[in-house]
Amino acid sequence: MKVLITGGAGFIGFRLAQKLVERKVLTAPSGQIEPIDEIVLFDVGQAGEIDQSDSIKITRVAGDISDRATVSGLVDRDDMSIFHLASVVSGGGEKDFDLAVRVNLDGAMNVFEAARSRSGLQRVVMASSIAVFGGPHMPEVVGDTVKQGPQTTYGVTKAIGELLVNDYTRKGFFDGRCARLPTVIIRPGKPNAAASSFVSGVFREPLNGVDFKLPVPVETVMQVVGYRAIVDGLIHLHETDGSQIGVDRALMLRGYTVSAQDMIDALQRVAGDRKLGKITVEPDPFIVAICKTWPRDASYKRAEALGFPCDSGLDEVIAYFIEDYVGD
Amino acid sequence: MKVLITGGAGFIGFRLAQKLVERKVLTAPSGQIEPIDEIVLFDVGQAGEIDQSDSIKITRVAGDISDRATVSGLVDRDDMSIFHLASVVSGGGEKDFDLAVRVNLDGAMNVFEAARSRSGLQRVVMASSIAVFGGPHMPEVVGDTVKQGPQTTYGVTKAIGELLVNDYTRKGFFDGRCARLPTVIIRPGKPNAAASSFVSGVFREPLNGVDFKLPVPVETVMQVVGYRAIVDGLIHLHETDGSQIGVDRALMLRGYTVSAQDMIDALQRVAGDRKLGKITVEPDPFIVAICKTWPRDASYKRAEALGFPCDSGLDEVIAYFIEDYVGD
Repeated sequence: MKVLITGGAGFIGFRLAQKLVERKVLTAPSGQIEPIDEIVLFDVGQAGEIDQSDSIKITRVAGDISDRATVSGLVDRDDMSIFHLASVVSGGGEKDFDLAVRVNLDGAMNVFEAARSRSGLQRVVMASSIAVFGGPHMPEVVGDTVKQGPQTTYGVTKAIGELLVNDYTRKGFFDGRCARLPTVIIRPGKPNAAASSFVSGVFREPLNGVDFKLPVPVETVMQVVGYRAIVDGLIHLHETDGSQIGVDRALMLRGYTVSAQDMIDALQRVAGDRKLGKITVEPDPFIVAICKTWPRDASYKRAEALGFPCDSGLDEVIAYFIEDYVGD
Repeated sequence: MKVLITGGAGFIGFRLAQKLVERKVLTAPSGQIEPIDEIVLFDVGQAGEIDQSDSIKITRVAGDISDRATVSGLVDRDDMSIFHLASVVSGGGEKDFDLAVRVNLDGAMNVFEAARSRSGLQRVVMASSIAVFGGPHMPEVVGDTVKQGPQTTYGVTKAIGELLVNDYTRKGFFDGRCARLPTVIIRPGKPNAAASSFVSGVFREPLNGVDFKLPVPVETVMQVVGYRAIVDGLIHLHETDGSQIGVDRALMLRGYTVSAQDMIDALQRVAGDRKLGKITVEPDPFIVAICKTWPRDASYKRAEALGFPCDSGLDEVIAYFIEDYVGD
């Protein structure tokens, strides 16, 4: 079978592809577990090269997800699965509303229509976000049964994606699932345009010997999870039997609540005698305002009951980030 | 100022136009109450003729709301308000998914973008529906703080519209408001494609001497309200100060819960010695299945606090329906 990963040049998309190359199989639209013979990494820019495998053809395609013909051309087999991760992120969406609509709404519709146009019930896993929550009716603890009142354009487009995936699935157009992600840590490389970018930066920059300005007060809390658990969670969501998920196809992938102070403490604990860049607290009103719209806590009951993976906490994630991206 | 009513040939849109002709004024984007000098009734077919007024130019335009240039051409002044009522309804959306997407999503985006393109903060009132509720997480009592899990394409498109109106308003693109309507009774004329069409038919057909097959069991409950209260409610929502509504711009317009048996009883009570068509109970599985996804009860707290109108119950609505549409 063939796997399409949109956002395949992104951190999670690329790691997902690597994991699928190792894994070699997925549940096909037929319901049978089938070998993967083709993976397409689609993104606005060309993805990096992946360790090749003899049995899987890996293609990296750069293009515009808001162009229907482009997306339709990528979904050219009936025995396919799609991981739809491409997205303008939160800070980016606040700065360019039209781009967020084009990529996150038109782009998603193009993916959904392409999947619908094929025979068989293709599995479509879309990345959503905890940013779907917010607004005046938000309770202290968010979760799968809580009203969505997103306060960013990014969150609005993700909430809309969840509604559409539910409806395309209800209509039998494809077999959709939405993974509502907490903030994923620790992203390597450069900061991105997400308002939550600092949540990775606070680990990454000091570990690379770079001083870091924390743009929020240390008591700021957020729901996070390590990238390995998220990649495993996306695959687990793909593999879970649809009848176990039920008609509400969007579920919170597991995470946990930490404060910025917890992050600083864990970093110092795990870093040992490494020389860390210095962290100073310099709140940025733009970031602080977005953080104030985030929930205080979250419930992951459905994902727990469905056996989704989670890591053991910040110490584990920092340790494997050092192994994967920092070195000795 | 100019008023555009999409769905202006529909029952509510047409009555709204009549009411605005009587009312003569609305709050303009400037925040001042201004005289209305132009009303456009836009719909897929030509609206009926309205009692003209000397001071208001009334235009009836037939066209396709999914065509952006058409909609943009209707929003040709800065001192405008828009009542966006055009919609494929529930039964229709279940039968033609693509039409529902084109009219309810693309059409809504066209209206929103047209309003955004003008100077000033145009007020946009969109009709949403209690059909945004449903699914496995729905509580017994729905309301403004309850998660939306729509189980029809119609409900999905309305939930998406609510999210977009909130975001366009948050961004300052226009001053949007969504009226989440219960089932509006009593619609005159022919049955429409809404699954709830019977809720008007059960009154209308017997009052016109026509026998009526009730397609649901008599214990079926729903939230209803009379059409006069809805037209008044749409205007009240337009006129309410935005700061009183807050950032969640979608609110339940007031209604009340009745059973099909309540409807039959009220009809017999109000009809007096009129000769009524006979009502027989003949459940239709397609309609019964949709009704089962409806909420048992609803809370209208926000609308009550904001002084929204409501009628006194079925007897009042039946009485004014006889006055408006049946005669002696």
